[in-house]
Amino acid sequence: MPAKTKLPSRRTKDLAAGKLESLATAVVEQAHRKKDPEVLIPARMLSNVAFNEKTRHIEMGDAKQSRSLFNYGQAKRFMQTLLVASKCKELISRGKSASIRQIFYLSKHTIKGTNEKTFDNQEESDPIIEDVEVAIDALREELHVFASNRGNLVGPITIVDAGNTLDCTIMGSAGYAVPSICEPEQIQFKKCQAKYILHVEKDTVWRRFYEDRFWDKHQCIVSHGGGQPARGMRRLLQRMHQELDLPVFVLLDNDPWGYYIYSVIKHGSINLAYESRRMAIPDAKFIGVSSFDYERCGLSDDVKIELDDGDIKRCKQIAAYPWFADKRPWQKEIKRLLDNGFKMEVEAMISKDLEYLTEDYVPMKLKDKKQWLD
Amino acid sequence: MPAKTKLPSRRTKDLAAGKLESLATAVVEQAHRKKDPEVLIPARMLSNVAFNEKTRHIEMGDAKQSRSLFNYGQAKRFMQTLLVASKCKELISRGKSASIRQIFYLSKHTIKGTNEKTFDNQEESDPIIEDVEVAIDALREELHVFASNRGNLVGPITIVDAGNTLDCTIMGSAGYAVPSICEPEQIQFKKCQAKYILHVEKDTVWRRFYEDRFWDKHQCIVSHGGGQPARGMRRLLQRMHQELDLPVFVLLDNDPWGYYIYSVIKHGSINLAYESRRMAIPDAKFIGVSSFDYERCGLSDDVKIELDDGDIKRCKQIAAYPWFADKRPWQKEIKRLLDNGFKMEVEAMISKDLEYLTEDYVPMKLKDKKQWLD
Repeated sequence: MPAKTKLPSRRTKDLAAGKLESLATAVVEQAHRKKDPEVLIPARMLSNVAFNEKTRHIEMGDAKQSRSLFNYGQAKRFMQTLLVASKCKELISRGKSASIRQIFYLSKHTIKGTNEKTFDNQEESDPIIEDVEVAIDALREELHVFASNRGNLVGPITIVDAGNTLDCTIMGSAGYAVPSICEPEQIQFKKCQAKYILHVEKDTVWRRFYEDRFWDKHQCIVSHGGGQPARGMRRLLQRMHQELDLPVFVLLDNDPWGYYIYSVIKHGSINLAYESRRMAIPDAKFIGVSSFDYERCGLSDDVKIELDDGDIKRCKQIAAYPWFADKRPWQKEIKRLLDNGFKMEVEAMISKDLEYLTEDYVPMKLKDKKQWLD
Repeated sequence: MPAKTKLPSRRTKDLAAGKLESLATAVVEQAHRKKDPEVLIPARMLSNVAFNEKTRHIEMGDAKQSRSLFNYGQAKRFMQTLLVASKCKELISRGKSASIRQIFYLSKHTIKGTNEKTFDNQEESDPIIEDVEVAIDALREELHVFASNRGNLVGPITIVDAGNTLDCTIMGSAGYAVPSICEPEQIQFKKCQAKYILHVEKDTVWRRFYEDRFWDKHQCIVSHGGGQPARGMRRLLQRMHQELDLPVFVLLDNDPWGYYIYSVIKHGSINLAYESRRMAIPDAKFIGVSSFDYERCGLSDDVKIELDDGDIKRCKQIAAYPWFADKRPWQKEIKRLLDNGFKMEVEAMISKDLEYLTEDYVPMKLKDKKQWLD
């Protein structure tokens, strides 16, 4: 499939900076008009989160919380919000970025003439960063704040990252390292001959696909997120899916953790529902490992890992999520896992043979749409 | 400094495969000579580990343990050892590699006519892999067994990895992803203009140096290991140090964990002492963060994190290691940390300014040899 480079809905440097400025200007204007300065923050709580059936995103509702300077219970968080916003504005102006820990250290100081610190620990500053994100409707990455780098990929795509043009078929044996910030400002797609993306859970599984040259034989991108994919990887997957029309297939362990990783990739996360719109991939398909594969693939007892109480509890929680609750195939899948009484790892597939996973299992899965879970 | 590409003491594919074959042949010959088949494994226990003052490596002694087929207590481990050895031999012959978890799944099966499994869990197979390593004096990587990929680097060096020629100044904003296997068979050095290596603890610190273009201004390689560096990163650092004559400077948090990471990079680890010879870098220098930097750099209270009981206990253990015990500067450093009563993170340095770490602190440290700890 040739690359169709649709223009991304680009949110430029100036846009985020402008919004931060508006936030500050509004506060100043309130003061000039002798009103109590306040900031309105969309409420980041479970009661304000819902599954949107149409977009298939986990989304935030319209509830807002006020944060006012002259309210004793809100004054500190009001100050912290503006402090973090100003640090982000500074980062954007200087063309620099900082980690959430660095934001903490940049913002932490003792308020003159007091013993009061602006922040006591990072547990205080992290939610404020999220507050600023939702307040101005910008992703953390647009505020130049980064999390950890995690995840790699290999395949026939050429990515321009920080001005470096990278052919992702020849990036060495650990592949292209996906950075924390994958916004259009930092990363552009140049050429893509891949037909789809296969996303796997762990780097050791990824290496199996790398080494067996799956990406070459099947002309696809193979990526991993090192467990639950970090924001950078999720954003990159979503952008490749949207801008390059690449279908996304997900291969995870057959356990509740695998189901949950899929759920986050597909619909977004409950905690950070405001980012779903630019991270979730509602069309992503789960291709395995399915609870039915034990029988379907004639696997031996060697692949079985007994479920513990935590697994069982978690399975029931996931089955009850609104976005799984009304899907018969998912209900059957989870019920079968519980009936099996055991879980299975992707790597267990190679107990048949080192190349069974890449030569037989995944090609079989990709070919038979009936085996996909949506 | 121009690249001096000394020939690495190359241990080829055939060498490791040959040694595995000799191991098996010896067992067969014992059987033909009607002797009890046995394998001798160097003892991997604390009592067989010592610090070699001359090489400055943590090394294994000469004690060996027998593992015999006709000894009821040893028969299972004898069988497991030969099973893992044969799987490694197969990997080498097929030109493939496998993770330690994949080795577990490849080796796990039910012994015919019994309910007995060859391995019950990975906790059983991991030490057997280490046994095979020491038995034939080969690194895990030479047996084609990989751990996790972790760590990245940026800087003026061209690395050939799996046949891909990679200019590490233009590998994107997460840098070159260091693979798990960094043996000469997989990785060669082509061109190097770097004057030294600066190794930092975390990826978020690394990104500070990447973004502030420290590697460019100072013509050096900046690497991180994502915490305690994985084997791949340690092996790569050691090879660049030895084959390219690059000094190695280490920048870690000012806490016992930072001291320990340094200790492992420099002298090797206690658990895996047999690998020191090809992973340790006895000439590596610790440049910070030092307990004396709080005063020396005029830092504010904002950088302080109180020591807990675990930190204090760990500091005392580390101070008592033979390779620290007779070094006055290290004793003073650790004593000062305990006297301070607080620890400091590398990222805390930026509480002064976002670029303080890269523009002031590290250049100051590198310039003044008296501040290095050896």
